Amino acid sequence: MTARAAVILAAGQGTRMKSPVPKMLHKVGGRTLLDWVIDTVEASGCERIVVVVGNHSPGVRDLVVKRLGEQAVAVQDPPLGTAHAVLAAKEALADFDGDVLVTNGDCPLLRPADLEPLFALRAQGAALSILGFKPADALLYGRLILGADGHLIRIVEPKDATPEELAVKACNAGMYCADRAQMFAWLSRVDNKNAKQEYYITSIVGLATGEEKLVKVAFAPESAVMGCDTPMQLSQAEAIFQTRARAHHLAEGVAMLAPETVHFSWDTKIAAGAQIEQFVVFAPGVSVETGAVIRAFSHLEGAKVGLGALIGPYARLRPGADIGAEAHIGNFVEVKKVKVGEGAKANHLSYLGDGTVGAKANIGAGTIFCNYDGFDKHDTHVGENAFIGSNSALVAPVTIGAGAMTGSGSVITKDVEPDALALERAEQVVKPGWAGRFRAAKLAKRAKK
Amino acid sequence: MTARAAVILAAGQGTRMKSPVPKMLHKVGGRTLLDWVIDTVEASGCERIVVVVGNHSPGVRDLVVKRLGEQAVAVQDPPLGTAHAVLAAKEALADFDGDVLVTNGDCPLLRPADLEPLFALRAQGAALSILGFKPADALLYGRLILGADGHLIRIVEPKDATPEELAVKACNAGMYCADRAQMFAWLSRVDNKNAKQEYYITSIVGLATGEEKLVKVAFAPESAVMGCDTPMQLSQAEAIFQTRARAHHLAEGVAMLAPETVHFSWDTKIAAGAQIEQFVVFAPGVSVETGAVIRAFSHLEGAKVGLGALIGPYARLRPGADIGAEAHIGNFVEVKKVKVGEGAKANHLSYLGDGTVGAKANIGAGTIFCNYDGFDKHDTHVGENAFIGSNSALVAPVTIGAGAMTGSGSVITKDVEPDALALERAEQVVKPGWAGRFRAAKLAKRAKK
Amino acid sequence: MTARAAVILAAGQGTRMKSPVPKMLHKVGGRTLLDWVIDTVEASGCERIVVVVGNHSPGVRDLVVKRLGEQAVAVQDPPLGTAHAVLAAKEALADFDGDVLVTNGDCPLLRPADLEPLFALRAQGAALSILGFKPADALLYGRLILGADGHLIRIVEPKDATPEELAVKACNAGMYCADRAQMFAWLSRVDNKNAKQEYYITSIVGLATGEEKLVKVAFAPESAVMGCDTPMQLSQAEAIFQTRARAHHLAEGVAMLAPETVHFSWDTKIAAGAQIEQFVVFAPGVSVETGAVIRAFSHLEGAKVGLGALIGPYARLRPGADIGAEAHIGNFVEVKKVKVGEGAKANHLSYLGDGTVGAKANIGAGTIFCNYDGFDKHDTHVGENAFIGSNSALVAPVTIGAGAMTGSGSVITKDVEPDALALERAEQVVKPGWAGRFRAAKLAKRAKK
Repeated sequence: MTARAAVILAAGQGTRMKSPVPKMLHKVGGRTLLDWVIDTVEASGCERIVVVVGNHSPGVRDLVVKRLGEQAVAVQDPPLGTAHAVLAAKEALADFDGDVLVTNGDCPLLRPADLEPLFALRAQGAALSILGFKPADALLYGRLILGADGHLIRIVEPKDATPEELAVKACNAGMYCADRAQMFAWLSRVDNKNAKQEYYITSIVGLATGEEKLVKVAFAPESAVMGCDTPMQLSQAEAIFQTRARAHHLAEGVAMLAPETVHFSWDTKIAAGAQIEQFVVFAPGVSVETGAVIRAFSHLEGAKVGLGALIGPYARLRPGADIGAEAHIGNFVEVKKVKVGEGAKANHLSYLGDGTVGAKANIGAGTIFCNYDGFDKHDTHVGENAFIGSNSALVAPVTIGAGAMTGSGSVITKDVEPDALALERAEQVVKPGWAGRFRAAKLAKRAKK
Repeated sequence: MTARAAVILAAGQGTRMKSPVPKMLHKVGGRTLLDWVIDTVEASGCERIVVVVGNHSPGVRDLVVKRLGEQAVAVQDPPLGTAHAVLAAKEALADFDGDVLVTNGDCPLLRPADLEPLFALRAQGAALSILGFKPADALLYGRLILGADGHLIRIVEPKDATPEELAVKACNAGMYCADRAQMFAWLSRVDNKNAKQEYYITSIVGLATGEEKLVKVAFAPESAVMGCDTPMQLSQAEAIFQTRARAHHLAEGVAMLAPETVHFSWDTKIAAGAQIEQFVVFAPGVSVETGAVIRAFSHLEGAKVGLGALIGPYARLRPGADIGAEAHIGNFVEVKKVKVGEGAKANHLSYLGDGTVGAKANIGAGTIFCNYDGFDKHDTHVGENAFIGSNSALVAPVTIGAGAMTGSGSVITKDVEPDALALERAEQVVKPGWAGRFRAAKLAKRAKK
Repeated sequence: MTARAAVILAAGQGTRMKSPVPKMLHKVGGRTLLDWVIDTVEASGCERIVVVVGNHSPGVRDLVVKRLGEQAVAVQDPPLGTAHAVLAAKEALADFDGDVLVTNGDCPLLRPADLEPLFALRAQGAALSILGFKPADALLYGRLILGADGHLIRIVEPKDATPEELAVKACNAGMYCADRAQMFAWLSRVDNKNAKQEYYITSIVGLATGEEKLVKVAFAPESAVMGCDTPMQLSQAEAIFQTRARAHHLAEGVAMLAPETVHFSWDTKIAAGAQIEQFVVFAPGVSVETGAVIRAFSHLEGAKVGLGALIGPYARLRPGADIGAEAHIGNFVEVKKVKVGEGAKANHLSYLGDGTVGAKANIGAGTIFCNYDGFDKHDTHVGENAFIGSNSALVAPVTIGAGAMTGSGSVITKDVEPDALALERAEQVVKPGWAGRFRAAKLAKRAKK
């Protein structure tokens, strides 16, 4: 098979997003637009990937370096058009021999199956293959004028189009595939003699046909190639992603009362036989095992939920929450970086941060793991079968032994040995009649006003 | 009127649900599929009900025994087809004289009005009446081939159908009605000479027409007879239920800002003049009186809400929460098995479990009723006009007298007499400059790293 | 320009709403129906506004007096029809010279652009202009019978209409505009010779045409003139409002993952570049600056959120919450009437009510500002860089100095000087083996049962 490489165009400023976050770092299904496209070209077998970035968005460059390494970065500065952008990747691919795919970086719904035909057309003899689509509203997309045998004659921009050409439904999705040397040869010949004085990649079509080279078109669904230039488009892509994710999980055997109220991330893993109630958000990094029930209004991120565990309603599991089989995490409970043992329970109004909770331990309502001293985080360990009284503060680092108990409302600062009871409490003092006198005084004062 | 009985087929394994919960115990509107169907045949006047169950799902059997008694259970084991399933009920109905309705157990949206025509056709002379429907997509449903006068000639399975027969829109919903003795006589003659070697109940149509008996069809809406074999179908049934429940409550005078975000159960009772905000879940067993406002993100189950009470946002009322008129239950407050008096308030971050709160009492933010000692639950009683200071722990069993107050942050373990003030508190100790030194030391350590 | 006045009909009992809240005080987008209409006629340049109210709903009168003054109130009692209602405003407008617009008070989606044509038609010579609409379902609306040149010949009620007239799509929206003196002259001649013995304002059309005066019709979208007589209609109006508000904020550059789950109020102000996650409610009075992220399940009302602040998930900001730049308000945290400084954090299970939190202060999990003594509210002030230990109760009035710390689980009742550490804590007491013995005793008791 011919080797494959990809050039991903990610240098656009994305000003229409009107956001301090660079466009490429906006997310669909909890994953950045750029990561989605890198995933797709990787899955398409591209062994070399170059991402063209602008100097205006160091965050985009950082993502590329972290994921693909320095050699995957090509900088376009200043931006002089799409052909100019691809040319920025020329040097990085100088030693590459094979097909180069050029794609936009803001197409989170693009799939390998959408790109495969571009490579296939190349293998079948096309010098250049282009991805087309048939949008519901063609708007300002370039129209693809096809010959009788299906080859591409030319791309016409709407402003230059005749009424007949404007009526053409086939539009240019902006993705191209050609032999690497050929691609860059064409690109180097593109000129900028146009109103905006930009170098447009669409010009390579004319160069190719001028050489009587075969140019072919493959079509993809509109959703696959839709860009995300605005918050509205981003939310539309998110909606399509969620619709697919809901159908996928239902088909896999995840019971959902109201799937339209459940929001998934790209990597959510839920086993068949789990149940999800209404209004649940799965941020990235979550896995849920069978028999588990995620109740309404729960929010999970970077968390594992074991067999038959009961989560929520109103539970928040944060990264590192690892909830054991049959354990219960209840309402208004936050768990972060805590391994909760089998059958343990923390049902009400608690914060469990950093540490472990042993099997069958019971964490009373209103318990706080005091894990932070303003500078460092410390661990709390609660042993198996331990019982933490309600409204307790466990001041980390601290260990509560197996089977130990702590009295309600206690601040526990020292380790408690197994099977012991620890208390921190003053005497209860009663002032008879005090409340009655206080009330009378307040009412008298109020009456004077 | 002819006596009526029903045989409910609930022996299917429901493997397509891919769940550890048996299919019949999955819920729509908070009620199991099987309960819905039992409700419907009961409301249709069936004086005898037999549910055919499999040995694989003891939970289904338990439901039937609990609701209808041992005599309502018939076991099919092993499963040899639908005719075989109904035959399992033969003995239980041996002494019954009248019409027997056979229905599937997984049709939660089936209503008595959908079944009544089957009994009516019987009364009008049909030996056998069958429920048909006209699905949007006929798929693999058996086609009902009707004669010119509307009687059923035969049922054709799609694999055996001619193109003309495949085009027939009328399909078999799988519900049958005949005289008890006649029904079982036919069933005993059904054979299993087919690819799967199963005894199919559809065969009784051929037996009836072979005897030149009149077989008639009544039609029901597709939603009424849709089965719930998969999580997708279950969620579709739930969606139809919710759409109906929302329209019903709006028509009854319940004001809802965003009815599409409110989820009801089968037995939710809300009076006209109540208001429901966005994102509210009514699990089973809830009643709400007029003038009450249920604010956003609230979850209610087994709870009563009195006249003009204000619930939420983010309130969780659990079974036994009985909220008095004009009382307020606020954000991140959980109430379980507590009767809250008229005008009482618990507005912030509290857990009220087991006990009573008197009229006009005020429960401070962060209050916990410490009701559980690891083995038993105990009650907390707060008197009328009592004032519980914030962040208190009331260790049950304990009683706070009328008009009494407790100091903020106190752990109250002994009863407090009316109008008294109770405090549990150590002296406040101050270490001047300590925090400054701590910070300096931490920063120095950090600088060394 | 001719001076403009408006008479708003708000005297209906609204019994179809089935609510203890008067119909005019029901809300769309967090604003009462009546306020919406007053806003609209004000924006249309009406310099005098009279609202016709009934004696049955003092709350409606109160709203009018508070917003427009006593002189804006006209009382209709008893209700004898729409003409009679408008006549109630006669005296209040006796000294007004110009056009009078008559409109219903329950049309929250009516906009100045919908009314402008009525005034324009007047300026172009119509003696009377009427607002029409073409509903999807004409139902019982009066049909507008138009002449060839577009003037209104008459209004026909459905019960009196011929089949041809019933087929007319143009219907009467119930809004009228005429010269003040002319309007009241016609109204005084309306009779009540009809089945219900009511004085109908529609009768002025016959009076005008009888005088050969020109009557013209302007058309508005159905949504603009839809009344809100029932909970169903109210929820439909709310849905239209939300759809518009979501599209508006997306267009302005507000990123929303799932805009269909975000609920806005009429006055919500969110800057471009803010991000809103799923399931967020903006009650009235909220502003959010750029870069801020409002996470899932948050509820905001009367609150300001500064640049880059992070709110939620599950945060509740109540009136007077003023969150500084880059500050964090986390899960199950309620903030009311507290100014939170730049970069301060309150991330878990806290109640901050009345006071201030200094820049970069850290409020530990489970902290409660004890602001209420049962009669009065008091302030808590936490200084810059202060660190409040987890599960603390700060009993107001109290001030924690800059850089000070408080120990976990402390009840702080006295001011803490800057950089000091304050603690309120008893000795931790341990009873070795106590928990083991307790458990053994409980289990023994249980075994006996």
